Amino acid sequence: MANKVKVGIVGFGTVGTGVAKILLENNDIIKSKSGIDVELVSVVDMDTTTPRPLSLPQGMLSSNLADVIDNDSISIAVELIGGTTVAKDIVIEMLRSGKHVVTANKALIAEHGTELYKVARENNRCIAFEASTCGGTPVIGALRTGLAANQVNALYGILNGTCNFILSNMTDNDIDFPTALKQAQEKGYAEADPTLDINGADTAHKLTILSRIAFGRQIEFSDVYFEGIENTSIVDIRYGRDMGYTLKLLAIAERDPETDKISLRVHPAFIHDDHPLAQIEGPFNAVSVIGHAVGQTMYYGRGAGMLPTASAVVADIIEVALGNSEKLFNGQTLQSREETLEKIDPIENLTTRFYVRVMAKEQPGVVAAYSKILGDHNISISGVLQREEAEHSNIVPVVIATNATKQKNMTAALQEITDLDVITETSTCIRIVDIPEDDIED
Amino acid sequence: MANKVKVGIVGFGTVGTGVAKILLENNDIIKSKSGIDVELVSVVDMDTTTPRPLSLPQGMLSSNLADVIDNDSISIAVELIGGTTVAKDIVIEMLRSGKHVVTANKALIAEHGTELYKVARENNRCIAFEASTCGGTPVIGALRTGLAANQVNALYGILNGTCNFILSNMTDNDIDFPTALKQAQEKGYAEADPTLDINGADTAHKLTILSRIAFGRQIEFSDVYFEGIENTSIVDIRYGRDMGYTLKLLAIAERDPETDKISLRVHPAFIHDDHPLAQIEGPFNAVSVIGHAVGQTMYYGRGAGMLPTASAVVADIIEVALGNSEKLFNGQTLQSREETLEKIDPIENLTTRFYVRVMAKEQPGVVAAYSKILGDHNISISGVLQREEAEHSNIVPVVIATNATKQKNMTAALQEITDLDVITETSTCIRIVDIPEDDIED
Repeated sequence: MANKVKVGIVGFGTVGTGVAKILLENNDIIKSKSGIDVELVSVVDMDTTTPRPLSLPQGMLSSNLADVIDNDSISIAVELIGGTTVAKDIVIEMLRSGKHVVTANKALIAEHGTELYKVARENNRCIAFEASTCGGTPVIGALRTGLAANQVNALYGILNGTCNFILSNMTDNDIDFPTALKQAQEKGYAEADPTLDINGADTAHKLTILSRIAFGRQIEFSDVYFEGIENTSIVDIRYGRDMGYTLKLLAIAERDPETDKISLRVHPAFIHDDHPLAQIEGPFNAVSVIGHAVGQTMYYGRGAGMLPTASAVVADIIEVALGNSEKLFNGQTLQSREETLEKIDPIENLTTRFYVRVMAKEQPGVVAAYSKILGDHNISISGVLQREEAEHSNIVPVVIATNATKQKNMTAALQEITDLDVITETSTCIRIVDIPEDDIED
Repeated sequence: MANKVKVGIVGFGTVGTGVAKILLENNDIIKSKSGIDVELVSVVDMDTTTPRPLSLPQGMLSSNLADVIDNDSISIAVELIGGTTVAKDIVIEMLRSGKHVVTANKALIAEHGTELYKVARENNRCIAFEASTCGGTPVIGALRTGLAANQVNALYGILNGTCNFILSNMTDNDIDFPTALKQAQEKGYAEADPTLDINGADTAHKLTILSRIAFGRQIEFSDVYFEGIENTSIVDIRYGRDMGYTLKLLAIAERDPETDKISLRVHPAFIHDDHPLAQIEGPFNAVSVIGHAVGQTMYYGRGAGMLPTASAVVADIIEVALGNSEKLFNGQTLQSREETLEKIDPIENLTTRFYVRVMAKEQPGVVAAYSKILGDHNISISGVLQREEAEHSNIVPVVIATNATKQKNMTAALQEITDLDVITETSTCIRIVDIPEDDIED
């Protein structure tokens, strides 16, 4: 006999419509797979009049939040409003009214997760948020359960479909950033205001969430260094390609096994063409996780969309209904904020290789002056890549790749280089990330 | 406070050693991630003298099965013996003695799963077997929970690391099958007797297990059609490459949305070079799952090895200890065997494209005779690919690709072609698999 559970949704936008659609149309699939009979009883949204691509049964949609909060028969409440203000208050109300919460809201979990976890624990309820990262691909589930025997040593992700569409579109079609962004907007992959996607904040939100689970530490959004793709030039993508690299907006979490410190960062990165992450195209997302026992594993799927995201929300509803989410939520201990803070490695301490392009006046002594500055900062050049005359000017690009060096050295060197009279523009500096193989013996 | 659970292992080979190692060395990681304090109390193996790369605490290793079966404090028993005879009896004993069972034994679950599930249910216990497919990559977990809201429409997998190593080694280094097999044996990727790996049976075992969960039907090993890679010629890999295809041993489960029938098969397949599965190299495994809501997702990792497989065994121990596995095991309803049987589409009914190479005497009328037979069986040729003189002989390869046609037509045509006087060897016929895109709207 199937276990019955009643669900209320707050937020009837794209994802809310997808969740309602699956719950109303696929109840039999869910029941046969899990033994849970999920009944959708209420959908709340301030806007009850705009037509959606799904008709709800008469009386199910209302604009009255109390229809979910005050309905004691509802044991699972789904927050799909988005944002971090109203959504936060509503999630707290949901928990206090005795409901478990399922949400797809990455900003909310990343920025206010610690507080919300606390409210959940005080009320003996749990929060599930598989849908907050990588759409329907069960990455959080993999980290929580499938890899639970592992010390996670590193995590590399392409977590924002908008940015990945723009960068792979630039790379494949040799077009500039504004054109690629415009196409992303036309295809519905980018919002009218794409700021949060392209400035890296969305990816950083997701990395915060994944890292908390992967490392079991009380990581906050502010611990993640991030840069976006808004200044990406097709020129650098071309040079990178010549060197065997593909440009991706990469989310990186790396644990130093000696110090146990973790580096958390999001930035454009040149990765080797033949790494599986370099092959991730268009709006897809992927996460590569390296565990001490399992070695390298990778998870791949659509990063967004009505039904893919709804798939994860419904998976969470099922897991919460089974009681499994609660056990996992309660079972995980996060290291305290104090311990966590001591173990965050700031970006200045990062050691990495760099790609640097400067635009220099074509005159004697330029490369010498430039090389001297790098040498002064202990930066060794692994290769000068190209030096060709630009059209209609005496300004030439000088492109180099460096050996591994400290971020703070590079930052200081770049400042001096930019100040040289012979350098005509702000220099472009992109980190080259050599994603390691795992060290599992075959 | 951590929940304590006691575990016994039967089988102290490679994987058993890995599981013991993780349980003894990583108890703190497991406890912090799950709240479960797993205590290994007993390891049983007939061989207690051969040195292993791990020392167990004094008295933990014995050759007496009763040390696990009769120890009532052990609630989870791990079967890592392998095979389907002794292992089966022992698993039944474990269940009857009131223990939940965790196993990595794909042959056992594939061939006797139905019977063992029944014994488990009769004893109110569960069987968990994440480690039976794809090493430590949590594919079964993804199908059971992360994709629980989905009607699975198709599943494509590279599930045997030995075969994938051999085929990618042949492709990358242009070597023949015997050389590639020998190298696999030297690297420890292939057994001295590699039959079960290279004849496709191991892959078919894993496909049986995945399909049962993906489709919720009582699928038996005998429902899966399989062919191996033992007759693979480097010549065909070369021709395939020229046509833009990579050869993989592919596990395929496809549901026809109109008839709800599923086709279950394992065979060498030419897939497009640019499909992510074509990039899977060496001993790695990958599974691409297409769900009606989530679209295409893919899971990738090491297919075998001491610690990767142990990682999955320990993940199962944790999930069983939390009570989650039991709920999922009990929650899933499989369609009856009668219903399932009606919904299995036999290989004869398969419609697919084919690559065919025949070795023909170079004389007038050969291609005409050959083409006529294909035409008689309603097989249309999409391209004649190459026709060049072989060295020191008047025997030439004639290579064609067909449009989609029924398997039974091709089987009949091949028989007639092989009977032609001008055809000098058995023809080579490889299915070309066009893995579909998902139909999720962006």
